[in-house]
Amino acid sequence: MGGGRMLPILGAFRHHICLRTSSLTASTPRAFTSQIIKSPSLLSLDLSDSWSSPSKQSEESYTPEEYSNNCIAKIIDGKAIAENIRSRIASEVSRMKELIGHVPGLAVILVGQRRDSQTYVRNKIIASEEVGIKIKMISLPENCDECEVCNVLCRFNKDPSVHGVLVQLPLPQHLDEAKILNVINVEKDVDGFHPVNMGNLAMQGMEPLFIPCTPKGCIELLVQSGVEITGKKAVVIGRSNIVGLPMSLLLQRHHATVTVVHDFTKKPEKITREADILVTAAGVANLVRGSWLKPGVVIVDVGTNPIEDRRSEHGYRLIGDVCLEEAIRTASAITPVPGGVGPMTVAMLLYNTLLSAKRAFNFT
Amino acid sequence: MGGGRMLPILGAFRHHICLRTSSLTASTPRAFTSQIIKSPSLLSLDLSDSWSSPSKQSEESYTPEEYSNNCIAKIIDGKAIAENIRSRIASEVSRMKELIGHVPGLAVILVGQRRDSQTYVRNKIIASEEVGIKIKMISLPENCDECEVCNVLCRFNKDPSVHGVLVQLPLPQHLDEAKILNVINVEKDVDGFHPVNMGNLAMQGMEPLFIPCTPKGCIELLVQSGVEITGKKAVVIGRSNIVGLPMSLLLQRHHATVTVVHDFTKKPEKITREADILVTAAGVANLVRGSWLKPGVVIVDVGTNPIEDRRSEHGYRLIGDVCLEEAIRTASAITPVPGGVGPMTVAMLLYNTLLSAKRAFNFT
Repeated sequence: MGGGRMLPILGAFRHHICLRTSSLTASTPRAFTSQIIKSPSLLSLDLSDSWSSPSKQSEESYTPEEYSNNCIAKIIDGKAIAENIRSRIASEVSRMKELIGHVPGLAVILVGQRRDSQTYVRNKIIASEEVGIKIKMISLPENCDECEVCNVLCRFNKDPSVHGVLVQLPLPQHLDEAKILNVINVEKDVDGFHPVNMGNLAMQGMEPLFIPCTPKGCIELLVQSGVEITGKKAVVIGRSNIVGLPMSLLLQRHHATVTVVHDFTKKPEKITREADILVTAAGVANLVRGSWLKPGVVIVDVGTNPIEDRRSEHGYRLIGDVCLEEAIRTASAITPVPGGVGPMTVAMLLYNTLLSAKRAFNFT
Repeated sequence: MGGGRMLPILGAFRHHICLRTSSLTASTPRAFTSQIIKSPSLLSLDLSDSWSSPSKQSEESYTPEEYSNNCIAKIIDGKAIAENIRSRIASEVSRMKELIGHVPGLAVILVGQRRDSQTYVRNKIIASEEVGIKIKMISLPENCDECEVCNVLCRFNKDPSVHGVLVQLPLPQHLDEAKILNVINVEKDVDGFHPVNMGNLAMQGMEPLFIPCTPKGCIELLVQSGVEITGKKAVVIGRSNIVGLPMSLLLQRHHATVTVVHDFTKKPEKITREADILVTAAGVANLVRGSWLKPGVVIVDVGTNPIEDRRSEHGYRLIGDVCLEEAIRTASAITPVPGGVGPMTVAMLLYNTLLSAKRAFNFT
């Protein structure tokens, strides 16, 4: 990345970030997008809102009666879809290596010793290496200060062999997460958590450089499962900066009518019962029961909650936010936990890293 | 604004913008906020979501039976509330002039000759001058190119006597609105339309430098009218970057359960009938009828739609998106058009300009 493309970061704690505005709204190359993932670029979705005639507005998307309690939901196989995407990414990476002698590089910063974070980071590293993405990994001690994290970040921001920089969240309490995420160069923000990427995700007519991996993975699951999003009622449970918020923004860019349910929502089950598409990211095991669901709903379960299980090798197993046994009798499709959204998050991280490297090398 | 605080813009069409990251999350000084407007800083609202017990969640906010069809809605007097805010701003501006010899400066760029835009700009100029804000106004011809607009913007970006820069929207079709808005220095983005301000508005734990004027004005009307927002069901009709989108994000930061209704929404009246708070920004006269409303709803009508009226001086008058005669019998409170949201938008623009000048001069 040449000096003419981006001003250098002026050192940790001066907190200047410099954006090349023209690239903030750059659209994803269409051919490339259709090759690896199926979800379209956001700009291609933009349509002007002109309030139409009541006849169009009252059209029903489907008849709930089509679904009876005896139907069994289709299980959306996130693992298989993700594997397919990863193999396409691997082909692209080898083509890149062959043609220009470079591969994408991903830098990962892990602070502290959280077990779950270590597992997530390990999975990301293995998956990256499998597709040929070069990893640079820095572990910092639990008690490190903001200055140390920012110094590492600035080094990666400037390193031309690094195309994606990610800080594994959550960070230890004493570190200011917002401040640290702000230091990441937006052109390497493969997690898509920088405010400028979030703003461009929210605003019609804009295209973020990166879309957060989990929401992007959820949309890809819906698109690949043939679920129509436009005009559907979508309910998102949870409003975290990492999942719930960008998920709701992305569904809205896809022209769903979106409601976000959170801790302050009264009678959430009344709202979820209206959903054609339900995305759960509450982090509460079995929060969503069968009675919370409209017959025929499509469910994307982002929750991964450990529950004790003595029969399991590690003494626990992961379950989602949705009570699968109950949901399976009401929903038309559902993502399992594990094997649903999880593998897609990792695949989208690799996709974003490849996208970033292609931009940096102007490789099409 | 010294060179050490912000890197210079490198000329039009190189589209570099430079942000001082530390200031992106700067919180509004509390004392100042409480002095002029009543709505709290967003950071002060942040609460961690912990899914609570069903008993709390099922608590009802009020009994709809309290309201009967014979009740007449309270009219929320935006004109009076805005006047009060403007007079407080005027006092602050004179105090500033007295103590440091400076006043806030606002630069306005108007492209083309749209009648409505000319009226809006004139109103903003008159209101600014009344409170002592210094105006710099540039009119550009309808057929000017992006380069000309950006050159003017860059001049204002660098001018230390200018604390707010606004481009009156909509721009002529041939100009790229997104590109032009991106050129505005985020530290002078008093309209709050820059993606980084929008991203910080969306994300918990962040505080934008400026909140878009109309949504901020709507929240202020609700707060000053004693309307509780936390835990309420809010429906926003419209999802424009200027009103609908930031309105929904702001209501969510205030812990409402928000649904955004737009052109692709089927049976919007079924959704609006669930709303405790309804904000309409569709731009369609009388779109919302009495049958769309839940008894006791609080309505903020952002629509200003001209309809023919021969008895009026100009041959037309303005009405809102809501059929007032019908709504008044169902709602508990409603903002009128004109005299509701309109004056608040202007007051919030003055507020944002003062805020920006206070930041620039470090004046408390």
